[in-house]
Amino acid sequence: MGFMDNVIDQLCIPSSYEGVYHSSKRHAPMPSVETLSEIVSRLRAVLFPGYFGHAEIEPGTMRYHIGTNLDKIHRLLTEQINRGHCFLCTLDDMDCDACEQEAQDICRRFIDSLPELRRLLVTDVMAAFEGDPAAVGPGETIFCYPSITAVTNYRIAHQLQNLGVKLIPRIITEMAHSVTGIDIHPGATIGEHFFIDHGTGTVIGETCIIGNNVRLYQGVTLGAKSFPKDEEGVLVKGIARHPIVEDNVIIYSGATILGRVTIGKDAVIGGNVWLTRDVAPGSRVLQNPADNH
Amino acid sequence: MGFMDNVIDQLCIPSSYEGVYHSSKRHAPMPSVETLSEIVSRLRAVLFPGYFGHAEIEPGTMRYHIGTNLDKIHRLLTEQINRGHCFLCTLDDMDCDACEQEAQDICRRFIDSLPELRRLLVTDVMAAFEGDPAAVGPGETIFCYPSITAVTNYRIAHQLQNLGVKLIPRIITEMAHSVTGIDIHPGATIGEHFFIDHGTGTVIGETCIIGNNVRLYQGVTLGAKSFPKDEEGVLVKGIARHPIVEDNVIIYSGATILGRVTIGKDAVIGGNVWLTRDVAPGSRVLQNPADNH
Amino acid sequence: MGFMDNVIDQLCIPSSYEGVYHSSKRHAPMPSVETLSEIVSRLRAVLFPGYFGHAEIEPGTMRYHIGTNLDKIHRLLTEQINRGHCFLCTLDDMDCDACEQEAQDICRRFIDSLPELRRLLVTDVMAAFEGDPAAVGPGETIFCYPSITAVTNYRIAHQLQNLGVKLIPRIITEMAHSVTGIDIHPGATIGEHFFIDHGTGTVIGETCIIGNNVRLYQGVTLGAKSFPKDEEGVLVKGIARHPIVEDNVIIYSGATILGRVTIGKDAVIGGNVWLTRDVAPGSRVLQNPADNH
Amino acid sequence: MGFMDNVIDQLCIPSSYEGVYHSSKRHAPMPSVETLSEIVSRLRAVLFPGYFGHAEIEPGTMRYHIGTNLDKIHRLLTEQINRGHCFLCTLDDMDCDACEQEAQDICRRFIDSLPELRRLLVTDVMAAFEGDPAAVGPGETIFCYPSITAVTNYRIAHQLQNLGVKLIPRIITEMAHSVTGIDIHPGATIGEHFFIDHGTGTVIGETCIIGNNVRLYQGVTLGAKSFPKDEEGVLVKGIARHPIVEDNVIIYSGATILGRVTIGKDAVIGGNVWLTRDVAPGSRVLQNPADNH
Amino acid sequence: MGFMDNVIDQLCIPSSYEGVYHSSKRHAPMPSVETLSEIVSRLRAVLFPGYFGHAEIEPGTMRYHIGTNLDKIHRLLTEQINRGHCFLCTLDDMDCDACEQEAQDICRRFIDSLPELRRLLVTDVMAAFEGDPAAVGPGETIFCYPSITAVTNYRIAHQLQNLGVKLIPRIITEMAHSVTGIDIHPGATIGEHFFIDHGTGTVIGETCIIGNNVRLYQGVTLGAKSFPKDEEGVLVKGIARHPIVEDNVIIYSGATILGRVTIGKDAVIGGNVWLTRDVAPGSRVLQNPADNH
Amino acid sequence: MGFMDNVIDQLCIPSSYEGVYHSSKRHAPMPSVETLSEIVSRLRAVLFPGYFGHAEIEPGTMRYHIGTNLDKIHRLLTEQINRGHCFLCTLDDMDCDACEQEAQDICRRFIDSLPELRRLLVTDVMAAFEGDPAAVGPGETIFCYPSITAVTNYRIAHQLQNLGVKLIPRIITEMAHSVTGIDIHPGATIGEHFFIDHGTGTVIGETCIIGNNVRLYQGVTLGAKSFPKDEEGVLVKGIARHPIVEDNVIIYSGATILGRVTIGKDAVIGGNVWLTRDVAPGSRVLQNPADNH
Repeated sequence: MGFMDNVIDQLCIPSSYEGVYHSSKRHAPMPSVETLSEIVSRLRAVLFPGYFGHAEIEPGTMRYHIGTNLDKIHRLLTEQINRGHCFLCTLDDMDCDACEQEAQDICRRFIDSLPELRRLLVTDVMAAFEGDPAAVGPGETIFCYPSITAVTNYRIAHQLQNLGVKLIPRIITEMAHSVTGIDIHPGATIGEHFFIDHGTGTVIGETCIIGNNVRLYQGVTLGAKSFPKDEEGVLVKGIARHPIVEDNVIIYSGATILGRVTIGKDAVIGGNVWLTRDVAPGSRVLQNPADNH
Repeated sequence: MGFMDNVIDQLCIPSSYEGVYHSSKRHAPMPSVETLSEIVSRLRAVLFPGYFGHAEIEPGTMRYHIGTNLDKIHRLLTEQINRGHCFLCTLDDMDCDACEQEAQDICRRFIDSLPELRRLLVTDVMAAFEGDPAAVGPGETIFCYPSITAVTNYRIAHQLQNLGVKLIPRIITEMAHSVTGIDIHPGATIGEHFFIDHGTGTVIGETCIIGNNVRLYQGVTLGAKSFPKDEEGVLVKGIARHPIVEDNVIIYSGATILGRVTIGKDAVIGGNVWLTRDVAPGSRVLQNPADNH
Repeated sequence: MGFMDNVIDQLCIPSSYEGVYHSSKRHAPMPSVETLSEIVSRLRAVLFPGYFGHAEIEPGTMRYHIGTNLDKIHRLLTEQINRGHCFLCTLDDMDCDACEQEAQDICRRFIDSLPELRRLLVTDVMAAFEGDPAAVGPGETIFCYPSITAVTNYRIAHQLQNLGVKLIPRIITEMAHSVTGIDIHPGATIGEHFFIDHGTGTVIGETCIIGNNVRLYQGVTLGAKSFPKDEEGVLVKGIARHPIVEDNVIIYSGATILGRVTIGKDAVIGGNVWLTRDVAPGSRVLQNPADNH
Repeated sequence: MGFMDNVIDQLCIPSSYEGVYHSSKRHAPMPSVETLSEIVSRLRAVLFPGYFGHAEIEPGTMRYHIGTNLDKIHRLLTEQINRGHCFLCTLDDMDCDACEQEAQDICRRFIDSLPELRRLLVTDVMAAFEGDPAAVGPGETIFCYPSITAVTNYRIAHQLQNLGVKLIPRIITEMAHSVTGIDIHPGATIGEHFFIDHGTGTVIGETCIIGNNVRLYQGVTLGAKSFPKDEEGVLVKGIARHPIVEDNVIIYSGATILGRVTIGKDAVIGGNVWLTRDVAPGSRVLQNPADNH
Repeated sequence: MGFMDNVIDQLCIPSSYEGVYHSSKRHAPMPSVETLSEIVSRLRAVLFPGYFGHAEIEPGTMRYHIGTNLDKIHRLLTEQINRGHCFLCTLDDMDCDACEQEAQDICRRFIDSLPELRRLLVTDVMAAFEGDPAAVGPGETIFCYPSITAVTNYRIAHQLQNLGVKLIPRIITEMAHSVTGIDIHPGATIGEHFFIDHGTGTVIGETCIIGNNVRLYQGVTLGAKSFPKDEEGVLVKGIARHPIVEDNVIIYSGATILGRVTIGKDAVIGGNVWLTRDVAPGSRVLQNPADNH
Repeated sequence: MGFMDNVIDQLCIPSSYEGVYHSSKRHAPMPSVETLSEIVSRLRAVLFPGYFGHAEIEPGTMRYHIGTNLDKIHRLLTEQINRGHCFLCTLDDMDCDACEQEAQDICRRFIDSLPELRRLLVTDVMAAFEGDPAAVGPGETIFCYPSITAVTNYRIAHQLQNLGVKLIPRIITEMAHSVTGIDIHPGATIGEHFFIDHGTGTVIGETCIIGNNVRLYQGVTLGAKSFPKDEEGVLVKGIARHPIVEDNVIIYSGATILGRVTIGKDAVIGGNVWLTRDVAPGSRVLQNPADNH
């Protein structure tokens, strides 16, 4: 099978694999999607006791289950945080012990924030139940609704991102994106009592700021309009370029809102609208009516 | 690691987990997504013999495979139906034996309906093959097309919902939603010979009524326009609030149709249209042309 | 449980299962989605060494890993190609040895094309990195971005389709569709340096021709407008019916472009636009502004 | 394939399957070997913290891990105990609730006995370490020695048997038999500080009574000599028919000791001996020397 | 890591791997231990309905389960039989179609023999129950006793061997050997109502002939005494060289009986005996008593 | 469920878990039996190409498979060697980097020795084939015979032990012990062309020295006779206390040979013999004949 030797030779020439080959620093392996998936499952079991985690939980034994899950999360997540840092590390002169210590610290701070993270999710569950006449109870939304899945992953990822974690937050939101079709960048800021009905195709960009009590539908884009480049033609990263959506706004399915515009408090944006300008508080923006032909 | 004891304490305070904790009645466990997934796989093997189920099937042995699958489905589904009822049970004075008996009866009636369910799916397969010039044969649509996946789950779920099953139907349609991006509420009513091409992002609401021979594309929303609340500000559940789509209608990608409107027979709705009014039979509704800028 | 015997009887009547029963030729089993999934995973490990494949790879050992993966791919894919042919085989007088030999030949030619396939993917990775200000490095796009997942599956499937493989290419693009919400038909032709941001709901039809350096967003449809039928009312297959998109075009989210129209070089198509006509090179097409109400 | 219908017919005639068919009472399924295996794994994790159970355990988090394991053991074992009773149930007029309650009570009493069970195992670990010059530390015996595996399963099974559990104890000792070749009947009584070196082929019968500080080697049989039958020729069950082995006895490999004989304190029994009589305390019994030929 | 290239070179020199390398004929893969394990599990489910096979079985649905299992066994076993033949094939001029046809025929004849095979196993179950005072019912012996496991595998393997199958029978008896410590060669001939108590270490050689109603204990060897070689010093294969054990014989633990000797009807052989001569019907052979020292 | 809190309290008192709790140094986890099992499987695939490893191997692709396996073995085994050292580490002032470096060095030396290890195994395969008239070819012994399984694990473990590895060698021989019933201590020294027929219950002690061309049967013990203790009553470890077995010796089933005795060249030891003295070269030792009673 000499033909194969030939292909293998070509695929092993450095010029062939340059740009698509990952060479790890000090043998640090890639972050593990499987382990991150286990971590998120355990977090879900901690945050929504009795709904997830293969365990019937009673108040009398809850401590044990939450404690065991947190202990595992602590070990597993610390390592994944460190792998995330190694993935992007460009130092020749590495101080790996310092990175490992930092991963420890970040992980602890993340675990400390779980009660607050759950407090926010309680409001999201209420938003889902109150916002959908088809919901028969809050429990149904926790167990079945893509919005809760996507928002839980987002809130976890956002908190990790705020604590300085690299790469891992994006993997966690992409997990939810793949399962729900809802793509929330971990860098976005989202207030309490948030709900996305149906959700498939909704995109929330990196620098979005969303207030409290906002409701979106499927196929809504909160995106960027243009990407300034620097003098050398390279995209400038980190500029605020996505919409601000204030409290109590509703945006219907398929609406596209681009750029650093502000959708004022209590506004309603109709379906399929294309918007690149500010919208005053309390106003309603609808598409022009379609014609018969 | 005293810091963890502190977090665990906070997470175990009843006020923290109120609203996100599931306390099961009489130790009835949660419905199992894994088991429901097995049930749906076995139903697929029964409905489409030879395509699914890890078995080459010949007419001479078909009885055995279908019989074995139905026997397993019968046992597994009866239990899941019962768990679905327990999930929502609010009685202090439970008569669990009666519930178990009811789950038995429902399950039998569901199995009795499988020949009719398959008859409908045969028409859906023909619709997919006839509706897509890229399809090379009906078999390809059964094995590869998201529409068949989503419509099969929907027809199973809808039949269960009609028989009075709780929660399980929604889990079954959400399974298909996650895999196909097509979100059909189990309460919707859909006629024969139904096809959704590509499908990602299409949403069909709870009270929709869809006739025979209807074709949708990706990103179509058949949703609600507003949600009446009662005097106490609580959403009124169960009101007819989604479109009626009559026979032979075609709705192109990205169209959004909201409210209890009627899209008359043979109508064609263009892509990206936003519609909240009735459409006469046979008419064509298109978006206004976009301008150059 | 006599009720079950009755249902089984009904489900085993030929008129019940006609059209949804697959009877294999000479006991050739169905293509295996699991095996195809393994094949694609191994291809990913070959194409992006160090990113996928559960292995840290160093230049010194790369040959072994790539060689082992290609040897497995060779065996597994040859069989799947053959099963794809059997699936559609309608001959009474089969020459299975000839088919097996052809599967061998196709598989070798496919493997021979992997260096070129990787060359294209390198340009796609650069397109993703350069096109998204949120990307922190090319590695992040390889490991996390749905676009790379979907385009990799598409390029594999397209090459197989060009070599005459049946059914398998469609299964491979549907795998990516299910995970990313991006639906690219394996028959489409796509140039270098291609990127789809976010991607959920984007559809690229069978006869599309896309140039170099094109960028799409989520929810974009490049579809067919109408399907000519022959005199007997059967869809005519294989007609060029999807758009041509020339170099450097950008199409924003939710745009729907239908029919054999040409979007000229450097054009920009705004979000939510509905287009069924040619667009001149360099022009910008935007939706009419939405009104306040 | 009519030949198969014929075989199936024969295998479904009641006279064919009589005696090898299990018909469950009220649909109680068979005890699950997989679940019992999980239960024993979790018990091992509880009894030997840090050695088993996929968890690094520190004193500060030990409570959580042990609590979680005990909660799972409690649920799983209660059900298995009940299934064991159903397996042997011959009542027409069943009171299943009473059985379930009894299973609950037994399970609690079993869990209450775990500290004492661990105390015994600590002495067995010391016996293994002190009795084998090849052992490099007590930890090695816990992690590697078949004796610890077999004796742990035996002590668990014996305690369950004492509490009145049916069938389950035998399954648990057979699990260890299969893995270690050591066959200890759960009915046997064994004192502290017990060790079986190598162990393959050693058999300890149902009515054996073994004192403290006893050491056996591989291939030792402590069996019955004859089985009295009653007037109808049926074996009389439950008669004391196996040896009594007093404190500090050593029995070397391949020795066979049959019947209700007593091996007195401090006796040493040589390898390959065949013994059916009492042995005085402190004596040594060896095989006659083999001859050259 | 040049050191590894060097080792790999050495391991790939033909003189290094000669004798331990398997080069398959026409790419026929090795028999699969996993698949054979599945086949044996399904056979166990067919032979002992309700005890094995993850299914509660009722008379009314038994046909379906047995039919499905036999259909799977038929496909899987036919292929494994063929692989067994390929494994030993030394022909240059192969007629693989003939071999595949033969595998088909053998497999059918094997399936035809299952009712008789079950009839024999029913007698073995009774032998186990009647022969062990510790057994609480025949069901316990089916579910828990190594003897039933080993004898079931043996009877399957022996039937396959009689039908001319290569290699597979030995793999099947080795599976049971590994799990029970009982090593029965598939070539041995064993009558009805056979029981081996405890069983670990018992060996029954290729040319043994065992009558009805025989009971063995653990550690019994029925072996060969010497192996005649031909003029070139090569072992002569296939010579009758193991004991004949007539009806109703009992052989206690650790007895070693070597050579083509006959143990006459109703004889009893004591534990640890070493025997290389005929034993008259009805006689008792015991080891000389061990002495005190 | 307060009763459980009470049990948990008792199980977490240090005096309860002392002696059965493993506290890892610097969070080094326990050696992983699963990973060691994977390592041994990969070694088997390297040593016996084409027989094991889920791959058909041809000379033209052998390098890739062996290279990939060795690269994985190298990574996995280095870590396990290190864990073995941590398991026994008692230092307060650890230099973990030095240990890791040593693990690297040992692992390389082990891999360097694989060609010699395979050379020995080739002779063992010939011994098995030549020594058993029931063997139909050398390939059957590689694929099916417990002797090859046990001796392969032993030779791997012995080499690791010679290189100074802790704990891991014993785990590897215990894996084979569990599956075959053959218990060979990794410290034993065994020459070329070694075969154990049937093997269940055979034990070869730590300080045994076995020459070339030796054949054993099942149930043979090469053990220690007495264990000298030091003044404080503690067993003296490491003393030569097991038999020396010279070239060409045959030992039949159930023989027990204890102490530092020498079985001279070409000697034959009969079954069930109990031996604690030297045996002259060429002599035959048999048990006294059993009597009729």
